[in-house]
Amino acid sequence: MPGVVVPESNCDVLIVGAGPAGMMMAAWMARCGINARIIDKRGTKIFNGQADGLQCRSLEIFDSFGFADRAWKESNHMLEMCMWNPGLDGVIRRSDRLPDTIPGISRFTQIVLHQGRIERFFLDHLKKYSKIEVERGVLPESLEIDTSKVEDNFAYPITVKLRHLTDEEATPEQSKASKVEDGLFRSNLAADDTDDLIRKSRGKEGTAEIVRAKYMVGCDGAHSWTRRQLGFEMEGEATDYIWGVLDIIPITDFPDIRMRCAIHSAESGSMMVIPRENKLVRLYIQLTEITPDATGRADRSKITPETILKAAQKIISPYKISYEYCDWWTAYQIGQRVGTQFDAHTRVFLAGDAVHTHSPKAGQGMNVSMQDAYNLGWKIGLVVKGIVQRSVLKTYQSERRRVAQDLIEFDHRFSRLFSGRPAKDVMDESGVSMAEFKEAFVKGNMFASGLSVDYGASMLVAKQGSSAEQGDGTDVSTAHNSLTGKQVVGKQELSTNIKLGMRMPSFKVLNQSDARPWHLQELLKSDSRFRIILFAGNVTSATQKTRIKNFCVKLDAQGSFLRRFTPASCPIDSVIEILTLHSAKRCDVEILRDFPELLHPFDKQVGWDYNKIYVDDESYHEGDNHAYENYGVDKERGCVVVLRPDQYVGYIGDFEDVEDLETYFDGVLVKATKS
Amino acid sequence: MPGVVVPESNCDVLIVGAGPAGMMMAAWMARCGINARIIDKRGTKIFNGQADGLQCRSLEIFDSFGFADRAWKESNHMLEMCMWNPGLDGVIRRSDRLPDTIPGISRFTQIVLHQGRIERFFLDHLKKYSKIEVERGVLPESLEIDTSKVEDNFAYPITVKLRHLTDEEATPEQSKASKVEDGLFRSNLAADDTDDLIRKSRGKEGTAEIVRAKYMVGCDGAHSWTRRQLGFEMEGEATDYIWGVLDIIPITDFPDIRMRCAIHSAESGSMMVIPRENKLVRLYIQLTEITPDATGRADRSKITPETILKAAQKIISPYKISYEYCDWWTAYQIGQRVGTQFDAHTRVFLAGDAVHTHSPKAGQGMNVSMQDAYNLGWKIGLVVKGIVQRSVLKTYQSERRRVAQDLIEFDHRFSRLFSGRPAKDVMDESGVSMAEFKEAFVKGNMFASGLSVDYGASMLVAKQGSSAEQGDGTDVSTAHNSLTGKQVVGKQELSTNIKLGMRMPSFKVLNQSDARPWHLQELLKSDSRFRIILFAGNVTSATQKTRIKNFCVKLDAQGSFLRRFTPASCPIDSVIEILTLHSAKRCDVEILRDFPELLHPFDKQVGWDYNKIYVDDESYHEGDNHAYENYGVDKERGCVVVLRPDQYVGYIGDFEDVEDLETYFDGVLVKATKS
Repeated sequence: MPGVVVPESNCDVLIVGAGPAGMMMAAWMARCGINARIIDKRGTKIFNGQADGLQCRSLEIFDSFGFADRAWKESNHMLEMCMWNPGLDGVIRRSDRLPDTIPGISRFTQIVLHQGRIERFFLDHLKKYSKIEVERGVLPESLEIDTSKVEDNFAYPITVKLRHLTDEEATPEQSKASKVEDGLFRSNLAADDTDDLIRKSRGKEGTAEIVRAKYMVGCDGAHSWTRRQLGFEMEGEATDYIWGVLDIIPITDFPDIRMRCAIHSAESGSMMVIPRENKLVRLYIQLTEITPDATGRADRSKITPETILKAAQKIISPYKISYEYCDWWTAYQIGQRVGTQFDAHTRVFLAGDAVHTHSPKAGQGMNVSMQDAYNLGWKIGLVVKGIVQRSVLKTYQSERRRVAQDLIEFDHRFSRLFSGRPAKDVMDESGVSMAEFKEAFVKGNMFASGLSVDYGASMLVAKQGSSAEQGDGTDVSTAHNSLTGKQVVGKQELSTNIKLGMRMPSFKVLNQSDARPWHLQELLKSDSRFRIILFAGNVTSATQKTRIKNFCVKLDAQGSFLRRFTPASCPIDSVIEILTLHSAKRCDVEILRDFPELLHPFDKQVGWDYNKIYVDDESYHEGDNHAYENYGVDKERGCVVVLRPDQYVGYIGDFEDVEDLETYFDGVLVKATKS
Repeated sequence: MPGVVVPESNCDVLIVGAGPAGMMMAAWMARCGINARIIDKRGTKIFNGQADGLQCRSLEIFDSFGFADRAWKESNHMLEMCMWNPGLDGVIRRSDRLPDTIPGISRFTQIVLHQGRIERFFLDHLKKYSKIEVERGVLPESLEIDTSKVEDNFAYPITVKLRHLTDEEATPEQSKASKVEDGLFRSNLAADDTDDLIRKSRGKEGTAEIVRAKYMVGCDGAHSWTRRQLGFEMEGEATDYIWGVLDIIPITDFPDIRMRCAIHSAESGSMMVIPRENKLVRLYIQLTEITPDATGRADRSKITPETILKAAQKIISPYKISYEYCDWWTAYQIGQRVGTQFDAHTRVFLAGDAVHTHSPKAGQGMNVSMQDAYNLGWKIGLVVKGIVQRSVLKTYQSERRRVAQDLIEFDHRFSRLFSGRPAKDVMDESGVSMAEFKEAFVKGNMFASGLSVDYGASMLVAKQGSSAEQGDGTDVSTAHNSLTGKQVVGKQELSTNIKLGMRMPSFKVLNQSDARPWHLQELLKSDSRFRIILFAGNVTSATQKTRIKNFCVKLDAQGSFLRRFTPASCPIDSVIEILTLHSAKRCDVEILRDFPELLHPFDKQVGWDYNKIYVDDESYHEGDNHAYENYGVDKERGCVVVLRPDQYVGYIGDFEDVEDLETYFDGVLVKATKS
């Protein structure tokens, strides 16, 4: 169109899609202070339905941003899981009760809260920490990557053309008509509408713009437009199993309607009960009477709330179930797929449903998607800021594609066990053994908490072994001593319950200066800083005092790695924060007398820092959490633990291993330029 | 002024003053759905300084409204109290450490957060639950009570003329000039400015209005205009002690600056250290060099942040203290006074500083003021709604004036011990014994938690003894059986740790239907309902099942007190809610099978109520709180406990004492008219 000037602009990071993965990415951009944009083709945020389970790990992450309390307060908490199976008479009865979250693994339990509220928490967070706003009704139309510039830190190698839709165009079909909201239009039973939307909008004046970006993240769901532009494949398969979902306030005499239940009926299929907030219950209901046709697609027109309810009534019989209020409903076909590649040139990345799809019943989807972005966000943020080396970005695929592979493997097995007909007896070989189902569930519970994630060796995780084998096969370099050429390997034996590659567990400790108890994790805010946790041991011993002093002298020295990696104009704790946890009696210790200044820095305006030194001792009101014992750290000698900005453990060493510590950071950080 | 029509209107409740007492009153009005107005002569809310300590009991109350979590998150938590006294060499040293809150008395500890945030929580609460807004720059000019109508439930016997100020008029002097905000203009060292403000505004067009009210509450502070109109006196006395207050970010080598400290210097006076949120510390500093003149007034012009800091530096020597940032400061003269009457005709009430003043160091003022209003609000609300009898309003004075008397007695003793020079040795009779000070502090700690309040016998508290003796002397009737004429006395022996007249303690219990742990107090929302806590005992025993069934049959019968007091058009739990706590094993019990419908009412729209039945059993993640044992209730037989809408215990009885239970409610509630 001659005469129309298409506006052009630069941004550091362009995020496509404002679902949970996109919002998590935006949250990191806000906290890192990055010039980022986030766009979404839909005109409004989610109000009902969608994913709703939140794992312990997701809540820990929310807490690191400061809003887990909102989710915790509004949500329904999941405490117990009940298994219902046919008895010898074919009638369902409760066969087992299990804790829904394994006791002791986290300070949070699994909860249920609908996606719309979670997106609200993120939106409020963006508003508090940045000027980033979700741009709705905006979608990408073309993507170009200038491969000659991808290794140039200052270049904008990505060019994206965006289209701005009208409100009418951006409103999904069903929202205009249906009284009860349904999710079929987003379900994998429906085709993607992005191309349609682009076609309708194309050629209109004033709706296009060009954005040049340093990095781009496609969080644009199972039909990912971004993935298609990159030409990446999804590997995996679909099944014949079709499931319906109802969010209702049930009227029922089923005794466990407020528990999470897995119900296997004898002949009518299976059902999962997920009690939710505001008296709602979500039912995942197997639709045994609907099967895909020859092309592999199911007939959507046969699926209505009424047909789904009827299926549920058969499964739950002899108990009755009905409803007066339905909040939302949808249906989906079970399948497991994972993307072949998670990034192009470590410039354009894919996260969430764009690179892995699976069944929603295990409450994994939203969590793993957010955790993808949680893994990636700080890496991109710190690379853009010039603090972290670009090579670190390769760990995104090696770490998260491996998690996705594990996830679909788990889901594959679990879905088949859940959708299968229960075996009548041990001779019934075509049936599913309920003992096997229970065992899979118990094993899956650890997986489902999100806490079993164990990242492989890389420059970010100083552990023994091959990075390719421990990841998804991607070649990721590990830190090596520049003189000896030896790979730096953390001393796992110094803190037996703090695992290299896994997230830092949390126990209660006391602030030395005011005796207030904190969960250690509460101190590990997502503010994009690396942290050294100095387990200082018994600081009242003369030997230990000397060890601590020597350690601090080395870190505080002119030209030390701590000083090299911290811009001269910034406080000493702005790239790497040191938190100290000692094991002497709180009352025997005083900060000014017993700790080097580096561990509680002085500021001319606000005096000493009283929030850096903690103690493992008894609290007045919350008992003794025995942190050293629980972490498996020697109470006398302590150790040094390095945490990445996402709370995963990168390195463990002795006070005397400062050279290894330095080598670790040399492999990750960019030496600060004087300013 | 001829020609000007002064607008007139009615409202049920007029609240004068939007400090903590007025806001608490407004919160109750919002929750009771009352047509109320709240006015304040100041043009803006508080942003800095003012009172800041929150007792356990205040947090429990906040939680019953749903916002304790906000205070808990933003505040500084007070864990330890350190005492500093002169040693034999006259140099101060730490002599004792004590827990700041007595372990075990509440699920909250004392915290510190400034008044402005607390007012914010109330404002947000009003917005969420009502259309009540604080009308600022509005003050009362005249008050008339038509005594002929005070016993008429439908009358508006109170007429108040209001003045609307301009923004300029409503802004206190200091806020316009000073860079650092000070509180002297509100301090008891300054005279009241209400009359001035009225004089300036009077005669201007369009600034007056007439309000006719059923009830009025004066929460208008130590200089209370309302109290002066009623002609009520304050009894008590002032002292010569002048104290200064500094809110600063201290730069100091004093080791306990993040602890609450009571520092007695040998010769330079005393100081209290109160660590606060955002690195702030509040210092209460005795100004020994400033004394009142012959008229009893101190010279305000000598008091500046600099002179106060100098006094602090002398007291804390040999440690150093200074600051770069001062947030707020003020000064006050210690005195203790209590009002002779708390109400006029049980139509106009006084609450907070309007009827009691004392020194602020014990962190009592804001708490006791809010608790006055918390005691009064539901009573007025339910009287206006026709649910509670008007005679109940008399209990406000008998209950709260007694608390105020106890408070000033405590403060009188504590202030003198704190402001006195420490004794050099046992022979130094004019000095204060530090042992005695510590003892007073430890005793005072229970008092300061707000949990020692024990309301006397009245129609609201069915306990043994004389209502006049147990209260402030006001004659308050008690419930009597209409046939036998005997006073109803609850059976304290059935629940030895749930004390008649005291607030219900809290222990963790599990929801029967989803196994989620709750602190029992979390279930006792401030929604103006009375509650029957049915300690159902061992519900798996046949005997106990029969007892429960018989109890429910009586309460559920046509014409039962429960039905008589509940409007026919309302759900059965709208005036009195029954919550059940049983002691059998959770897994041995099912709601539909084991409990009468009355205990988990059915609703056509949303089915059974799953939030009424709880169990004392072990939780998966939070251990076993042994609620029955801690409440001192027999695990087999249980008992019946009645809680007032403010969580104070009104009655305790056996399942078979339904007649006493009925008599209790007959003395309090109004029989509902059919609707």
